[in-house]
Amino acid sequence: MAKKENRKRIEILALSGIPEVAEGDNIGDLITDAIERDALGFCEGDIYVVTQKIVSKSEGMTVPLASVVPCSEALSISLKTGKDPRLVQLILNQSKGIVRLDEERGVLIMETHHGFICANAGIDASNVPGEDTVTLLPRDSDASAKEIHQRLSGVIPVNHFSVVISDTFGRPWREGHLNFAVGSYGIAPINDYRDTIDAVGKPLNVTMVATVDIVAAAADLVSGKATNTPVSIIRGLDYESSPLGINQLIRDREKDLFR
Amino acid sequence: MAKKENRKRIEILALSGIPEVAEGDNIGDLITDAIERDALGFCEGDIYVVTQKIVSKSEGMTVPLASVVPCSEALSISLKTGKDPRLVQLILNQSKGIVRLDEERGVLIMETHHGFICANAGIDASNVPGEDTVTLLPRDSDASAKEIHQRLSGVIPVNHFSVVISDTFGRPWREGHLNFAVGSYGIAPINDYRDTIDAVGKPLNVTMVATVDIVAAAADLVSGKATNTPVSIIRGLDYESSPLGINQLIRDREKDLFR
Repeated sequence: MAKKENRKRIEILALSGIPEVAEGDNIGDLITDAIERDALGFCEGDIYVVTQKIVSKSEGMTVPLASVVPCSEALSISLKTGKDPRLVQLILNQSKGIVRLDEERGVLIMETHHGFICANAGIDASNVPGEDTVTLLPRDSDASAKEIHQRLSGVIPVNHFSVVISDTFGRPWREGHLNFAVGSYGIAPINDYRDTIDAVGKPLNVTMVATVDIVAAAADLVSGKATNTPVSIIRGLDYESSPLGINQLIRDREKDLFR
Repeated sequence: MAKKENRKRIEILALSGIPEVAEGDNIGDLITDAIERDALGFCEGDIYVVTQKIVSKSEGMTVPLASVVPCSEALSISLKTGKDPRLVQLILNQSKGIVRLDEERGVLIMETHHGFICANAGIDASNVPGEDTVTLLPRDSDASAKEIHQRLSGVIPVNHFSVVISDTFGRPWREGHLNFAVGSYGIAPINDYRDTIDAVGKPLNVTMVATVDIVAAAADLVSGKATNTPVSIIRGLDYESSPLGINQLIRDREKDLFR
């Protein structure tokens, strides 16, 4: 199926049949079970792209809003934005700070504890069963990726593979959302071409490629927003192994022109 | 090769053997020639992702810096940033305005005439032959995509296909670059899920998916920065045809929180 060919060909495969995930479920086991059921096989270099939602569910990062008591700051932001004050409280709990607050549109762009800048600190209610129940991002999403990687190691018959955890964010300046990497293990987050010469012998202008973000975005081509396809496999990509995680992608505040 | 299967599988194929492109070359013809040489065939729904660089070259959007006379504004910015004043002049010519100017790091983030917000207004020297020669973005990159589409229509044996033109941009907050769509034809730029219910029966939070940006990012997985692979094919994606272009992705200034 995925035999080595001379031409460059990468496959993105949807892994079907991952069941609804509950706290304590092991994502690594769910992946191997589904791959065997789907007869997709295992190839050297496979990248398992897992959506944040099921990682958060497996780690118990779901919160019923009824359990949250909003503080005065949350109540004040709720009044301004029209957002549920309990949701605002959770957003504040998950964040280092507010990056932008748009009262008119009810938009809260936060910097999460991980350093991600995104709406609502990555808290999301879609695809979470239960009235008024939301998921938070995994506490340490690189650690979550590593844990899935370790569970698969020795079980699946390949040595070189990696795990990327993805989440859907908006962007400044452009409409529409796409998936970004929020955790990774086993794949270099950034490809550095700083000592590379291009096809006409000039140094490359674009020197750092955000490999794991590209992988996360690409995986979404088969996952779909409304269907239950929380794991995709990227097969055939030539990449460097690395224990480094997503913090490599977080730009230092003092280098950032858009805070 | 790309037969319809029950499982969801998308292929990203590198199209090899596109020669160095010169002004007046027809990108559509180069694509059909290369596909026939590579025996990749044509499938319904194929998306041809073409890097901006060869489109600009074919349209004569290359400029030797020696032909540029910088004005006083360009000279002043050049003194502050250390950039070549002729390059600064070209950047100003291509732009509606400066979004950020970081003197210390020599960074110029511009809003281009198209409405893209990117470093140096998308002007780039890598993979352009000739000392001190740069490419500008295509004047109207949706029109460029449409032109390639029209050239392929009737020549290739499929009815449903599309063209996306990609370029490499950085992002705020995150290190590393990736490819974005700067022009498209034949594919809905955004997938709108605003009336969609998720797998557990709730309305989706993420409602607008930036399909062409995902396609552009994914195509880069096979193109590589230092190799000469300016065209990739995305095969197997289920998408809506559309004559709408990339301006659908440009967020209105008054809705943007990060200018």
